[in-house]
Amino acid sequence: MDLLKKRIMKESDIVSDKILNVDSILNQQVDPKLMMQLGHEFAKRFANEQIDKILTIEASGISVASAVAHELGVPLVFARRKRPLTGEDVLVERVPSFTKGIVTDIVVSKRFLTSGERVLVIDDIIANGDAVRGLIKIIERAEAELVGFGVVIEKSFQAGGDSLRKRGIRVEPLVQIKSLENGQIILD
Amino acid sequence: MDLLKKRIMKESDIVSDKILNVDSILNQQVDPKLMMQLGHEFAKRFANEQIDKILTIEASGISVASAVAHELGVPLVFARRKRPLTGEDVLVERVPSFTKGIVTDIVVSKRFLTSGERVLVIDDIIANGDAVRGLIKIIERAEAELVGFGVVIEKSFQAGGDSLRKRGIRVEPLVQIKSLENGQIILD
Repeated sequence: MDLLKKRIMKESDIVSDKILNVDSILNQQVDPKLMMQLGHEFAKRFANEQIDKILTIEASGISVASAVAHELGVPLVFARRKRPLTGEDVLVERVPSFTKGIVTDIVVSKRFLTSGERVLVIDDIIANGDAVRGLIKIIERAEAELVGFGVVIEKSFQAGGDSLRKRGIRVEPLVQIKSLENGQIILD
Repeated sequence: MDLLKKRIMKESDIVSDKILNVDSILNQQVDPKLMMQLGHEFAKRFANEQIDKILTIEASGISVASAVAHELGVPLVFARRKRPLTGEDVLVERVPSFTKGIVTDIVVSKRFLTSGERVLVIDDIIANGDAVRGLIKIIERAEAELVGFGVVIEKSFQAGGDSLRKRGIRVEPLVQIKSLENGQIILD
């Protein structure tokens, strides 16, 4: 994804050695054409898999996950960060958030993940991987099947991506960031 | 939008006289084909307007707003419900949330809304309209121009939509819900 690499090099800001601000590309402003291109790329990479559903987590994952769902013609489910007021049966996992510095619940209503469904998880960024591990636990508890994890940006200097690979999970990052040290973005 | 009306009648659940659960259509699961149809419909309704940007608020608005942005070929900006850790200049409004029962900040980075830009606000549901009034205040403070407000579902028995119309704002709901009383969904 040279296009994405160029956008990251041009538009992102290094906040610290660990945090890159990609608000103008993914986290607050999105270019719908780029999203469709990312969706197309994920669809291509997982073309050999049967996929019944896309799962992501609010909020920044929704735009790219919508594009993947559109490309594959399957429903998108997004986990919420709050329990619903509607009192329905939910699957809940408690996870810390690296960028937000807080612990939150992630919640999916039971009726949206059913036994045997083949689920592709999509997200915008992986750092330590806490959110995606929470989503995977929810998939397991629903007795659905995890196809893999597609992520726009993997911060490969943090442990999240590799912790999934070690468990045999297929991880497909579109871009890997190797380092943000000394005010420089080093891509893999 | 007969298609949308049918989906609402078939798939939504009445939680109370005031709250309809549309989780399977908009708020937790989304059908990308339906989203594209909604996006197309909004684009058609605002076809006579020059639009530079779509503005929505995380999280449930993002999917449909992405589709509108895609149809119109303009960027999407989504307001966050938390201040960023990145320390950049932001526009903040404090708003109550009807369905969540809490007060939250809505936040847009200054660099994503600039003076003179023509902004279309898109959201999933309007009840009392607190969130959209917050977005409109942010647009005003950015000295951008509000084109109008497109919303998938207006609960027209609540005051939000009319409070905007009274101010001369163009409100385009795809479906209006007149009443949820006595366990019945009455559409306009």
